[in-house]
Amino acid sequence: MDKSAPVPKNGESWTAAVLVIGDEILSGRTQDTNINYIARFLAARGIDLKEARLVGDAAGEIAAALNALRAAYDFVFTTGGIGPTHDDITADAVAAAFEVGIGYHPEAYALLEARYGREDFNPMRRRMARAPDGAVLIPNSVSAAPGFQIGNVFVLAGIPAIARAMLEALAPRLPQGAPLHAVTIAGEVAEGAVAEGLAAIQKAHPATAIGSYPYYRGDGGYGVHLVARGRDAAAVEAAARAIEALLKELGATAARIAQPGG
Amino acid sequence: MDKSAPVPKNGESWTAAVLVIGDEILSGRTQDTNINYIARFLAARGIDLKEARLVGDAAGEIAAALNALRAAYDFVFTTGGIGPTHDDITADAVAAAFEVGIGYHPEAYALLEARYGREDFNPMRRRMARAPDGAVLIPNSVSAAPGFQIGNVFVLAGIPAIARAMLEALAPRLPQGAPLHAVTIAGEVAEGAVAEGLAAIQKAHPATAIGSYPYYRGDGGYGVHLVARGRDAAAVEAAARAIEALLKELGATAARIAQPGG
Repeated sequence: MDKSAPVPKNGESWTAAVLVIGDEILSGRTQDTNINYIARFLAARGIDLKEARLVGDAAGEIAAALNALRAAYDFVFTTGGIGPTHDDITADAVAAAFEVGIGYHPEAYALLEARYGREDFNPMRRRMARAPDGAVLIPNSVSAAPGFQIGNVFVLAGIPAIARAMLEALAPRLPQGAPLHAVTIAGEVAEGAVAEGLAAIQKAHPATAIGSYPYYRGDGGYGVHLVARGRDAAAVEAAARAIEALLKELGATAARIAQPGG
Repeated sequence: MDKSAPVPKNGESWTAAVLVIGDEILSGRTQDTNINYIARFLAARGIDLKEARLVGDAAGEIAAALNALRAAYDFVFTTGGIGPTHDDITADAVAAAFEVGIGYHPEAYALLEARYGREDFNPMRRRMARAPDGAVLIPNSVSAAPGFQIGNVFVLAGIPAIARAMLEALAPRLPQGAPLHAVTIAGEVAEGAVAEGLAAIQKAHPATAIGSYPYYRGDGGYGVHLVARGRDAAAVEAAARAIEALLKELGATAARIAQPGG
């Protein structure tokens, strides 16, 4: 683990938040997919994603949200706003949030100058070499311009392919907790018919979170996906079996399905 | 406009936030699509979506986020957590946030009892008839169980088809502001090559927001989508023409593309 990562808390799990930055998300132009990807990435590492926020390209709002999240959770991942254009203001907003200066990061400057050539490394492209004082770079294997880490905050690109490459690059800096186990059982039953039994199962299995997600198919069929989630694989399995027994008792089908992210 | 909607502020635009509720979003199981849909719904009505938050099925966190958002924005839309199961706690959390009581809403109770029949209207299904004191129902044309409005907060289902039906049903309660206009221009040019000219265009067109969103195609092609957004259609058009002129000057293609949500 990188020494810049926080000290593990005895036996507790780590917590995280995502801050999505960009007018294009709030205008409805762009469907965010980074939160979902980061959620799965963290679940595999035993880090609980506890909250996500989406804000526009406004420095004050970015800084306020970031300060709230970095105080409340072990790790914060931001996406968006680190390109070369005038609306890319994340680095400045992060520096303001941390109350530190900002300038060219020598390593970032050198690698971007090499990438573009001295001629094409214009003032706007140089913006991508700026980072808050004290930041550590996060490599970008897709398009060179790096992200950065400062304290417990990881600043990633908004373009999904680049955000994903940056997550892979920073993964060794994160702790590995007990991964989340999840079993999903599909039952062709009305949610309201299974709800009472499900509440009893939740009560009997307090260490496992029982979730219920109804679905409606285009052909008029419907049912419910019942999910048992937790860090203790044996406890999750016991809860899953109780759910299967409940569905059987109600005369419904019960099929385990593969469902990433549980 | 419904009398429960806030008084329009002279000439200003209205603001809104979305609060997505559910462990399944933060675990990575479910990709949220409600924020994007609500963003487009609001943009068409001239209401600015300023922020979104995603929290899990935890009453304290739901209430805290709701109180922050409803104080900061004209309208808040929540999705998720209004079904019949034990993990559906949104109504209770909203009542706690507003510091009001909660009980069966007579109208909701009657319509759900009619839907299920007295026999099958079990205690868990009755949970869907609960609403905070003073709430006004939001009809659900898909599956009967209603959402509700209390103050400036609209509480919707999480299932996208139902959330959308509820939005249609509540639309007459919202003001109609000047809709957002957006023109998107695709240029086959590197973002870093267009950035300087774009910054100058932003400076010359302060009433229009200029956004830049690079894309990478599977075949190795790349380019940038340049977006002009604003309430004044003529100002947006003037900025769009300046962007087209810039791309032409750089020897790049410039094609207007249809892009909902701008």
